[in-house]
Amino acid sequence: MTNFPVLLAGQWREADAAGSFQAMDPSTGEPIEGDYPVSSRADLEAAVEAAAGAADALLDFEAGARAAFLDAYADRIDANADEIAGMASRETGLPLSPRLRDVELPRTTGQLRQAAAAAREGTWMEATIDTETDIRSRLGPLGGAVAIFGPNNFPLAFNGISGGDFAAAIAAGNPVIAKAHSSHPGTSRLLAEQAHAALGDAGLPPATVQMLYRLSHEDGELLVSHPAIGATGYTGARSSGLTLKAAADKAGKPIYLELSSINPIFILPRAIESRGEELVGEYVTSVLMGAGQFCTNPGITVVVASESSRQFISGATAGFEETEPGCLLGERVVSGLGESVDALVACGAELLTGGAPVDGAGFRFQNTLLKVSGESFLRQPEALQREAFGNAGLIVEAADEAELIEISKVFEGNLTGSIYSCAEGGDDALYASIARNLRSRVGRLLNDKMPTGVAVSSAMNHGGPFPATGHPGFTAVGIPGSIRRFAALECYDNVRADRLPVELGDRNPGAGLYRLIDGRWSGEDVS
Amino acid sequence: MTNFPVLLAGQWREADAAGSFQAMDPSTGEPIEGDYPVSSRADLEAAVEAAAGAADALLDFEAGARAAFLDAYADRIDANADEIAGMASRETGLPLSPRLRDVELPRTTGQLRQAAAAAREGTWMEATIDTETDIRSRLGPLGGAVAIFGPNNFPLAFNGISGGDFAAAIAAGNPVIAKAHSSHPGTSRLLAEQAHAALGDAGLPPATVQMLYRLSHEDGELLVSHPAIGATGYTGARSSGLTLKAAADKAGKPIYLELSSINPIFILPRAIESRGEELVGEYVTSVLMGAGQFCTNPGITVVVASESSRQFISGATAGFEETEPGCLLGERVVSGLGESVDALVACGAELLTGGAPVDGAGFRFQNTLLKVSGESFLRQPEALQREAFGNAGLIVEAADEAELIEISKVFEGNLTGSIYSCAEGGDDALYASIARNLRSRVGRLLNDKMPTGVAVSSAMNHGGPFPATGHPGFTAVGIPGSIRRFAALECYDNVRADRLPVELGDRNPGAGLYRLIDGRWSGEDVS
Repeated sequence: MTNFPVLLAGQWREADAAGSFQAMDPSTGEPIEGDYPVSSRADLEAAVEAAAGAADALLDFEAGARAAFLDAYADRIDANADEIAGMASRETGLPLSPRLRDVELPRTTGQLRQAAAAAREGTWMEATIDTETDIRSRLGPLGGAVAIFGPNNFPLAFNGISGGDFAAAIAAGNPVIAKAHSSHPGTSRLLAEQAHAALGDAGLPPATVQMLYRLSHEDGELLVSHPAIGATGYTGARSSGLTLKAAADKAGKPIYLELSSINPIFILPRAIESRGEELVGEYVTSVLMGAGQFCTNPGITVVVASESSRQFISGATAGFEETEPGCLLGERVVSGLGESVDALVACGAELLTGGAPVDGAGFRFQNTLLKVSGESFLRQPEALQREAFGNAGLIVEAADEAELIEISKVFEGNLTGSIYSCAEGGDDALYASIARNLRSRVGRLLNDKMPTGVAVSSAMNHGGPFPATGHPGFTAVGIPGSIRRFAALECYDNVRADRLPVELGDRNPGAGLYRLIDGRWSGEDVS
Repeated sequence: MTNFPVLLAGQWREADAAGSFQAMDPSTGEPIEGDYPVSSRADLEAAVEAAAGAADALLDFEAGARAAFLDAYADRIDANADEIAGMASRETGLPLSPRLRDVELPRTTGQLRQAAAAAREGTWMEATIDTETDIRSRLGPLGGAVAIFGPNNFPLAFNGISGGDFAAAIAAGNPVIAKAHSSHPGTSRLLAEQAHAALGDAGLPPATVQMLYRLSHEDGELLVSHPAIGATGYTGARSSGLTLKAAADKAGKPIYLELSSINPIFILPRAIESRGEELVGEYVTSVLMGAGQFCTNPGITVVVASESSRQFISGATAGFEETEPGCLLGERVVSGLGESVDALVACGAELLTGGAPVDGAGFRFQNTLLKVSGESFLRQPEALQREAFGNAGLIVEAADEAELIEISKVFEGNLTGSIYSCAEGGDDALYASIARNLRSRVGRLLNDKMPTGVAVSSAMNHGGPFPATGHPGFTAVGIPGSIRRFAALECYDNVRADRLPVELGDRNPGAGLYRLIDGRWSGEDVS
């Protein structure tokens, strides 16, 4: 058995392996050739030590060098797009085109290039100058590596070795230790090869980017709490995320989590009455997109019972039945979805369609739609907010508008909340109540729009209150916000001018840098 | 026994008391007349419930109303300055003038007014508009109260009912539940009376500000982890802070800690040689200021052994002996200081002067100076970084410059680090090494300046890496930074214009609001 090497301490080297694993082809359920190592603690310690050296060495590089690396890496991914997207499709069962090759891969390189531009410009640092006291501050690197755990569902755009957390951590000046997701090790390997080469292109310390394929749970906890680690980014399942959070919290290490979310949708009565049929299409598309394996998948939709809502539900049921179920990412996604559907039914939800795995090769589950009364939902709000990760949706049917409002008060923290209302104003009073209740429970509030699109926008919040994430003030997507997570506030008090970081000198170094000078944002020199 | 009432649910009302306590006069060691309640869990639950109502009610008020409250409160504190500062002096033993009446009280009202101005202006919200996607975001209130635990050492400027955390939490739009420090309940009561009256002046919901005098440890943990709480600010001892942090972390609630810090000072060889005598004066003043009871008190000073360093040490010893020991805040500060000094001596530190409580009435300890070799320090860096809270300092004498550099690598997270170097450049290479090592270990890096002054500056960082605080990216002092801690990121995606917060509309509502529009900070309308 020969394992693929790991990217450790600046080179591809044989892992100190405690075991090995293979990727699976979800479309067949068969393993894909090639063995990947489960790294031992020795690999972990070597990675952390090398990262500490890289964190120090990076202090000698200007932001432009990090930007050059991010740009070079993006170019290299583009140049190898077919191979990378092909491998990702094979390992995840997600469609090669348009999903991976034409949407997720360009999004990934776009994020890297946006992070490069932000690193070059520097406005993300929130450089702040108080001329009266001669105190100056900015956000700077953490002084230790960022550990990044990517999820299974976006093998490129959220991969620990290429995704938004990666781009943000590098832009802020930190080295990265990526923990690839075990469901797509080959994709991660191809990406890491390009990252390693791009470090060479840009002349950055080679240990700036490291990657291990898999660790034991204990070693994962050790990594996020290691004294030499700066912070962690984690996207994935709630249970593993909370275990890592406990370890990181105890060590006083920041950890940014992006966990499960059921993303409530409220369709107000006059919206469903006036354009219910159109909404059926939007809803079915959004729930089943990527076989429902989106962080922002609309898990719960709340309507007021009426003739229109009954038509909406029967239309959605038909839509679910008419659509070919997508391939799920792994065997455990299939079994987990089945368990969640069963649990919802046990809480009183009625199965409208689906509910069982699809027979035959590969990992598939019937498109599944459930319905529950608002009364039942209010009786067991926690149990009925159980995430059913995959191609399933739950519709909550409120008896009346008052019950709809009560339902909007019981949601736990979510990434998103959407409200559909009619254009003519008839839903406005109800909208105001629902929006007020959702506002503190969701990171992103949408109008008349499904939440599944997550634009890489400066104003995006791909975050939200616990337990959707670990902190309500940060976003995992969108620059400059995502970069600021992986930074420490550096203050300089009475520090001599020639010892200040270039962004804090009297002269604005240019390239579009904005600074908060005496309380006003400015692109100018200190006057 | 009649206890003073608590400020609960919008009124002064009798506590559901589980016990009572009295304040002490540190100058005599005698109790001060008046009984204060230890609140039961019933009081706590009532406060949290009222705060949840206030958090919702505050959504109907514009930022200007919160600003009006903060201004009115500051005016009322000024109008009652003699009484408030007098009570604070009696309860803490800190000098009435200049310390409390002329420095800390104006600082406190200044902070409240700065927070008012920031709330009115709104730039702290980091309103971000992406016109291409029509996604808009800003920081907004947390949707629950902020619990604030003030420390013993600043009865006004860091008091849970009037300090920087209080001002920041209100400016961000949150109600506050203040937990007064048990060492100065009378001061907290006088402040809370003015806060309550100022809420009336401004017409804010009366439960916006509540105050309890004391809680059991268990109830403290319940408060910071309560589902209806938004976040917590805590300034104080490390052990209690870490207990609260564990409870808050487990519940996924943000908690901002400002814990102990020993604030290393490095005096480089040519600085001590060229101006050692002058530095003795600066050092003695800074260590003994407020009897050493400052978060930024310089606990450890590192020098390279030389004739000049010996003169510095003997000068400092004389300075300590010639200065009258200040009054300490409580009996436990005296005993804790004694324990810390004993522990340092047990680790090999040599007692140069002091080391014992002062006989007679009141809480006093001899000004205490200790010395240890660099070699010993490097052998037991953790034990010798034990904080000796009070009027004590430890000097670490390195054998040479190489050892000085090694010492700069072993400090844990601190609020500040200072480096004194000569003006002529002779220390510059050494400075570069030390500064590089300290940078990721301290929040604020100072040149040629003691850390005890903490200016209320937009660029201040009164924060730092764990265990000085719980997160390296935030500051407890300085606006707008301190406000952003108590906020959630609110994103609006495709939300109709008339439903947006005023700061996110196309039109800039004025009053100096800066917004990040399409990546550029601007005070203008969306064009």
